[in-house]
Amino acid sequence: MTDVAALLEKVKSGEISVDEAVLVLKQEPFTDLGFAKIDMHRAIRQGAGEVIYGAGKTAEQIIRILQAMKEKGQDSVLVTRIDDEKAEEIEKTLGGGFRYDKTSRAGIFGEIKEPDGNGPIAVVTAGTSDLPVAEEAALTAQFLGNEVIRIYDAGVAGLHRLLSHMDELMSASVVIAIAGMEGALASVVGGLVSCPVIAVPTSVGYGAAFEGLAALLAMLNSCASGVTVVNIDNGFGAGYSASRINHQKEKRS
Amino acid sequence: MTDVAALLEKVKSGEISVDEAVLVLKQEPFTDLGFAKIDMHRAIRQGAGEVIYGAGKTAEQIIRILQAMKEKGQDSVLVTRIDDEKAEEIEKTLGGGFRYDKTSRAGIFGEIKEPDGNGPIAVVTAGTSDLPVAEEAALTAQFLGNEVIRIYDAGVAGLHRLLSHMDELMSASVVIAIAGMEGALASVVGGLVSCPVIAVPTSVGYGAAFEGLAALLAMLNSCASGVTVVNIDNGFGAGYSASRINHQKEKRS
Amino acid sequence: MTDVAALLEKVKSGEISVDEAVLVLKQEPFTDLGFAKIDMHRAIRQGAGEVIYGAGKTAEQIIRILQAMKEKGQDSVLVTRIDDEKAEEIEKTLGGGFRYDKTSRAGIFGEIKEPDGNGPIAVVTAGTSDLPVAEEAALTAQFLGNEVIRIYDAGVAGLHRLLSHMDELMSASVVIAIAGMEGALASVVGGLVSCPVIAVPTSVGYGAAFEGLAALLAMLNSCASGVTVVNIDNGFGAGYSASRINHQKEKRS
Amino acid sequence: MTDVAALLEKVKSGEISVDEAVLVLKQEPFTDLGFAKIDMHRAIRQGAGEVIYGAGKTAEQIIRILQAMKEKGQDSVLVTRIDDEKAEEIEKTLGGGFRYDKTSRAGIFGEIKEPDGNGPIAVVTAGTSDLPVAEEAALTAQFLGNEVIRIYDAGVAGLHRLLSHMDELMSASVVIAIAGMEGALASVVGGLVSCPVIAVPTSVGYGAAFEGLAALLAMLNSCASGVTVVNIDNGFGAGYSASRINHQKEKRS
Amino acid sequence: MTDVAALLEKVKSGEISVDEAVLVLKQEPFTDLGFAKIDMHRAIRQGAGEVIYGAGKTAEQIIRILQAMKEKGQDSVLVTRIDDEKAEEIEKTLGGGFRYDKTSRAGIFGEIKEPDGNGPIAVVTAGTSDLPVAEEAALTAQFLGNEVIRIYDAGVAGLHRLLSHMDELMSASVVIAIAGMEGALASVVGGLVSCPVIAVPTSVGYGAAFEGLAALLAMLNSCASGVTVVNIDNGFGAGYSASRINHQKEKRS
Amino acid sequence: MTDVAALLEKVKSGEISVDEAVLVLKQEPFTDLGFAKIDMHRAIRQGAGEVIYGAGKTAEQIIRILQAMKEKGQDSVLVTRIDDEKAEEIEKTLGGGFRYDKTSRAGIFGEIKEPDGNGPIAVVTAGTSDLPVAEEAALTAQFLGNEVIRIYDAGVAGLHRLLSHMDELMSASVVIAIAGMEGALASVVGGLVSCPVIAVPTSVGYGAAFEGLAALLAMLNSCASGVTVVNIDNGFGAGYSASRINHQKEKRS
Amino acid sequence: MTDVAALLEKVKSGEISVDEAVLVLKQEPFTDLGFAKIDMHRAIRQGAGEVIYGAGKTAEQIIRILQAMKEKGQDSVLVTRIDDEKAEEIEKTLGGGFRYDKTSRAGIFGEIKEPDGNGPIAVVTAGTSDLPVAEEAALTAQFLGNEVIRIYDAGVAGLHRLLSHMDELMSASVVIAIAGMEGALASVVGGLVSCPVIAVPTSVGYGAAFEGLAALLAMLNSCASGVTVVNIDNGFGAGYSASRINHQKEKRS
Amino acid sequence: MTDVAALLEKVKSGEISVDEAVLVLKQEPFTDLGFAKIDMHRAIRQGAGEVIYGAGKTAEQIIRILQAMKEKGQDSVLVTRIDDEKAEEIEKTLGGGFRYDKTSRAGIFGEIKEPDGNGPIAVVTAGTSDLPVAEEAALTAQFLGNEVIRIYDAGVAGLHRLLSHMDELMSASVVIAIAGMEGALASVVGGLVSCPVIAVPTSVGYGAAFEGLAALLAMLNSCASGVTVVNIDNGFGAGYSASRINHQKEKRS
Repeated sequence: MTDVAALLEKVKSGEISVDEAVLVLKQEPFTDLGFAKIDMHRAIRQGAGEVIYGAGKTAEQIIRILQAMKEKGQDSVLVTRIDDEKAEEIEKTLGGGFRYDKTSRAGIFGEIKEPDGNGPIAVVTAGTSDLPVAEEAALTAQFLGNEVIRIYDAGVAGLHRLLSHMDELMSASVVIAIAGMEGALASVVGGLVSCPVIAVPTSVGYGAAFEGLAALLAMLNSCASGVTVVNIDNGFGAGYSASRINHQKEKRS
Repeated sequence: MTDVAALLEKVKSGEISVDEAVLVLKQEPFTDLGFAKIDMHRAIRQGAGEVIYGAGKTAEQIIRILQAMKEKGQDSVLVTRIDDEKAEEIEKTLGGGFRYDKTSRAGIFGEIKEPDGNGPIAVVTAGTSDLPVAEEAALTAQFLGNEVIRIYDAGVAGLHRLLSHMDELMSASVVIAIAGMEGALASVVGGLVSCPVIAVPTSVGYGAAFEGLAALLAMLNSCASGVTVVNIDNGFGAGYSASRINHQKEKRS
Repeated sequence: MTDVAALLEKVKSGEISVDEAVLVLKQEPFTDLGFAKIDMHRAIRQGAGEVIYGAGKTAEQIIRILQAMKEKGQDSVLVTRIDDEKAEEIEKTLGGGFRYDKTSRAGIFGEIKEPDGNGPIAVVTAGTSDLPVAEEAALTAQFLGNEVIRIYDAGVAGLHRLLSHMDELMSASVVIAIAGMEGALASVVGGLVSCPVIAVPTSVGYGAAFEGLAALLAMLNSCASGVTVVNIDNGFGAGYSASRINHQKEKRS
Repeated sequence: MTDVAALLEKVKSGEISVDEAVLVLKQEPFTDLGFAKIDMHRAIRQGAGEVIYGAGKTAEQIIRILQAMKEKGQDSVLVTRIDDEKAEEIEKTLGGGFRYDKTSRAGIFGEIKEPDGNGPIAVVTAGTSDLPVAEEAALTAQFLGNEVIRIYDAGVAGLHRLLSHMDELMSASVVIAIAGMEGALASVVGGLVSCPVIAVPTSVGYGAAFEGLAALLAMLNSCASGVTVVNIDNGFGAGYSASRINHQKEKRS
Repeated sequence: MTDVAALLEKVKSGEISVDEAVLVLKQEPFTDLGFAKIDMHRAIRQGAGEVIYGAGKTAEQIIRILQAMKEKGQDSVLVTRIDDEKAEEIEKTLGGGFRYDKTSRAGIFGEIKEPDGNGPIAVVTAGTSDLPVAEEAALTAQFLGNEVIRIYDAGVAGLHRLLSHMDELMSASVVIAIAGMEGALASVVGGLVSCPVIAVPTSVGYGAAFEGLAALLAMLNSCASGVTVVNIDNGFGAGYSASRINHQKEKRS
Repeated sequence: MTDVAALLEKVKSGEISVDEAVLVLKQEPFTDLGFAKIDMHRAIRQGAGEVIYGAGKTAEQIIRILQAMKEKGQDSVLVTRIDDEKAEEIEKTLGGGFRYDKTSRAGIFGEIKEPDGNGPIAVVTAGTSDLPVAEEAALTAQFLGNEVIRIYDAGVAGLHRLLSHMDELMSASVVIAIAGMEGALASVVGGLVSCPVIAVPTSVGYGAAFEGLAALLAMLNSCASGVTVVNIDNGFGAGYSASRINHQKEKRS
Repeated sequence: MTDVAALLEKVKSGEISVDEAVLVLKQEPFTDLGFAKIDMHRAIRQGAGEVIYGAGKTAEQIIRILQAMKEKGQDSVLVTRIDDEKAEEIEKTLGGGFRYDKTSRAGIFGEIKEPDGNGPIAVVTAGTSDLPVAEEAALTAQFLGNEVIRIYDAGVAGLHRLLSHMDELMSASVVIAIAGMEGALASVVGGLVSCPVIAVPTSVGYGAAFEGLAALLAMLNSCASGVTVVNIDNGFGAGYSASRINHQKEKRS
Repeated sequence: MTDVAALLEKVKSGEISVDEAVLVLKQEPFTDLGFAKIDMHRAIRQGAGEVIYGAGKTAEQIIRILQAMKEKGQDSVLVTRIDDEKAEEIEKTLGGGFRYDKTSRAGIFGEIKEPDGNGPIAVVTAGTSDLPVAEEAALTAQFLGNEVIRIYDAGVAGLHRLLSHMDELMSASVVIAIAGMEGALASVVGGLVSCPVIAVPTSVGYGAAFEGLAALLAMLNSCASGVTVVNIDNGFGAGYSASRINHQKEKRS
């Protein structure tokens, strides 16, 4: 869309015909596999590697998308929300190029980018049960070129567990605060650091936790400024947004 | 009801007739004003002064109840959830015996009991807007014979504000933690002290605070053990329960 | 944290170096197993044995935590929310030191404390289906040094079932009232006794019980004073808070 | 509709023409005032006087409906959910034939039917604030030909207040149990009596009462059998249903 | 409780001692099996056979309760919410005296009472999927001595299916209207008949039916007077209440 | 956007420069008033007159938008969700060209289109309180060139009121069914007619009507096929969609 | 019902007796199989083939209904919401006349109607996971005589995927917009086209998607006019309503 | 807290006594006004000017806080959520140093910082009614040293309004997307830009918008990556977080 003027210039100069221009607008930006339209320009347009949301896709569909991507020159792809069986099937077909991580239920096809962000991203969890979400966030951030510091099981009921990591928290460019139950971690962390905080409510808890609703509401109402929130259990979204923030550069020269 | 055996003994000994016994069971425990049944035995049965919940009652009704109570020998009464107009009307009729407190919208008729609990009750709030609920809790506790320590505006986004009061928190028999928005105060306080904590969610906040629901759910899901919860904005309930706890004595001799 | 002044004194006297002091602040309060930070000071700081919340932890993780605790001198540990398989695996590894209770799905490693509270804690349920939650509450209270009276299947639709236990209710230091469906038990019990009442809503019921929501809301709105509430099915939380209340002593000498 | 066969007979016999029959089917059952269709047959079809739901209708509209009804021979009409101003305006226009009741915000045009039900209907409330709903139920029942017993402020937190009315409860044909907050009254009453119980949740309460939702859910989940429920604050509906039940006669001779 | 006066008289006359009287008050009304308190007086007190709610009870527990009841002279018992396996186990142990009905997942031990109500109870459903709830209602009503008319799959989207049963609807003493999805059946039936209508929302439907919530809300808001509501899928409750209504007799002679 | 090819042709032919083309793409489709962007092409692009949603706009803002529209050649404009004061102010400034309708709180500037749809649109309401929503729907439909049949106060509790209008319902191209409370009207109407039905839930009702939620859920779960739903109280949306449907013509020749 | 006049004429002329007429009214419109009432007139009355909602029906019940329909002359039937096993069982019994579609979990018995609508119906989805709902909508529309254009995986996060199909969208008579998660597709499509849009929220998503609730609310609040909504995952309802709209003809000649 | 080591060094060197150190830890970080604890270190600790949340504070309280801040050297303060009256009172007392903005209901005391972020922050709204929230976000961002681009009334129902601002969107460092109703703006914007997007749901809308809940859920479920969310109507929070992101610098040298 940002290339409309460029395209018009080519039309004017006769470089391409009107029909061709219309065709370009229609065919280029994605490859249509029938069941999915693969966006090949996003890496360029949005400055990030491609990601496949694996839930609700068969192993076969994922393999076909990965192969189509490779053909188009996409070197590395992150696949989230798969499971052990799907992962095994993909590994069998694609070989060593695909590495699966059991905790986060995610896999990476190709190489991970070298860290090139402004600083490290700290991933903090309230409890042990938050680990799958935390690892999805961490892996996503690493895949997108960020250094990650992991601080796990540091819930606010034992403040000293969190305070003992003050140095690492202060050194981070972005903090991802992950908690289920009452989600108080986001507010406490938000009050301690001066960098952006992304809060991830998890579905950990029972009864009136209502599958993460309690933590979600708590985080949205955080009394600490500088906290924004993503969907329940959305480790990927937190890692992705954190990476965007961590790659901020001065725009005006 | 605990006097059933005693009553039966009197029936057997002929001290009172069967009809009289039935009458006693029916008429004694309360005075019926038509629109309200006043329980005169609660002070004895439950070891506490009487309380009138003023919401939904007219000044006239409250005055009549207070007068009926006085006649029956009830020396001091707490009236909660009234407003400035009602209070003025009651003061005009009953004179100096009734003292109204603007912040908590509560009034006391008669004298406040001397503190005789196990120790002080600490009332902690996250913000300035929680004061009306906090003062209702504090006044209730004082009315029922408890010393109260007030620690206000000590939300977790600025932990040092709370931590600077550690001595007072450690000295308390019971802590009442009051917060709206995300209600994280309850969990942090719950992790710091070793006495019972009563959490009061308040309707302070906006949007996804949903009139106190966010704080309520957070407090019910507190990761800290030893925290129990009362209804949104229920300062009275917290003060009342705290007093019961603070008057615990050894039962077995 | 309460030892900050003591620590500072040692720094001043040269007993320990500044670096050592910082180290102490960081390393002491817990043992980091990677997936979990074990708090070894809580028993001292909060006056209670340690508890492991077993949900979302593997048998192996629980075993490692138990062993680490034992090494640090923790004599008895309560493990809640496990199941028959996990329990069997733990028993196999740790031997007779670990005893599992099928109804409450909880186990105890080491010895149960002798009762040393102010009086007995009464655990009352509305129906037979509330037993697992009730036994979790009872076992927790016993583990923490409390005598427990069990009154089961005493719902308010047959008041005589409850009233026949008036003596036991009146003798209790704390009553834990457990009910699903409409949760009316809390209000009726709250009106009968003069000690603190902790209400536990359970997920027993169907349809508009909404997994315990109906009972939870009812209990929060109890017309009886002196009732506080914990999360749905949170028998442990009720037993823990009841024990704290039951160990109240006079603080001022 | 039940007269289709009769109508067909008349068509066959030539008593009325086909066109006339169609006309009858269309025009008879109600009078169309443009903004409202007044059902003149309901009294016959359903054995009850007519009722106007006054909410959302102007005084003028109510007056016009009352006049149209009178012309059609409807002797007595109940108007619910009006207010003092509307009532005054109606009384001014229609004269002494309309009597307004301030508490229930309802008015009756014409005479009240003599009681002719199976027995008295008991209207029980938990608190004083439930009176407007209770009086709407009581007035509706009286209007429809029922004797009413009022038992007010008999909530379960003071069981003796309710138990002292056991005789009246036992004598009733139907009990209407009205309560806000946690609505436990319905379950306790339901367990005491052997007649049908209609439960009415009220919007009395605050915080987690959620405008009557807590009481509604509690009543729907009542552990006592024989309890059915109507909408929040629906005193009219309870009185109407109670009257239908109280006028049950043996159908098979 | 209604026998308190009688008991007192016996105490006075020396027929029984005070201790014996207290014992009577405590022991009589139920048999305590440890896990359950069986109420033997309900049949007398509330005029109905005993019912066991089978959900959350093992086959063994149900068998023990049935045997204890039989010993106490209870001739017939309804057991609801069991399943095929439990039923088989009960039949094996108790023999032909227990008959199980697959559709309603309920069983009857002993004989069904002869119909002795005021008239038939009509059970109407909107669709085929509502049958299990409908049969639970029908079986309960039959067990308690009522004749039942079944009208199934008569939803309002095809009004003629319902209208073709007008005769049966008009002949009924009580109508039980059962529907999931939008629950409109209750309003249409409520407008057609002049007897009490009990509405049962079912969890039939998907998406925004929210497990019966849509039908529940619709029924509570029915524009037809004379409709009361029970919990989602609560066929038993509807049948029980309908039976109480259908056994109404004139109370004043 | 559909003119991209045409625009490209002009660029190619040199009729307009590239810069001009980009300018056209940016400036044409709307007029920017600072606080609002007025879409002047919608009438052409979507075949309908322009509509201003008046809620949250001042009378002055509305007047400025109307004037800007007139200058651009827009002959007739519908303004919804205003009130008497705003309407008066607009009429004062713009003169007789603006006509306000009190019931629907909407006004029309300019002329109403001649009816040119496939047939009449029937607007049916359950009660008298639904009139404001119904008139908003009716006025919108008329403004957009549709004949409207009004059938008011025809709720399903008195089926004959609805059935007496069968001829008009059968003659309609589209039926708009408007109801609050339990919203059953949509299902009954949906089962009677063979044209598309648009259901509008209204916020009429109280208690468990939850401001229109009960009717909304009911309509979404309608057991009748061919029913689609718009937002609560959205009379405009129903009228607009009905008009689109009523102007359907065969697309393939 | 529309034939009442005709029937009355026959009664008058003596062609049929009164009893016969009553019988006709009762027996004709459907065939009663006991567990289901099959409506044979709907095809005529509502201009559409018959549809069986398969959920909650056994394969045997479906087969019996299909056979009864065939006997009555119903040539083609759509069966929705079945699964592979049921489909296989039906195919085995009924032979090649029944064709099952795995994606939509629907089957067609008999022939599909030739397309005879005003134009094509476009079915658009936001993602790949929405396919089962989309195919149910598409198959339903085809079964009822409509040409269908499929545009899948065209969510708004990559606008070019949607915009590249503008020609097809503009050519459609009706657009069905299907999306889970945040359901934004409906608003964007609604702003692009001038034909009616039917929005279908799907249960695709996790966490705060709340099983389709987020998409449902979003679609009901669409800022684009001309959008109506059906139940979550209700592909059938969308296809059915779209077909009714697509078969609109001018009614007035 | 980060100065603990420094403080310990001073203790060791005897520069300050132990008691003094404890005093420093307790008294320094805030000024206690009784009703509020003013945090004077936040500007240093978190790199931002101080902000007063005005809701629930009187004009007098705000004035006292502002004066106390000025005394401590705080040059500029933002006061949010006040109203015209409070603003007037503050301006009267404090003079020209306080400037109030009517649209955002916020005021600034002192000077606004010069823009020193990485680039401009774009504030985009879907409609005109979102302006108050948008201006609160814009003012906050400007107060904290950011250049702001305003793009208002650019909802997705008219995509060209948004697309015409592509250049400005592409130039932004952070985009704040503000929308009520269905909140689709966040997803469309999220798909167009490569910088972080902060979504703010507003309470604009009616009916099923449920005071911003629909937009909130939609934004949390955005199909576009890189979107995080703040509380409903929380313009301040969005502006604050955007500023933190826009001031990101490389941390590792």
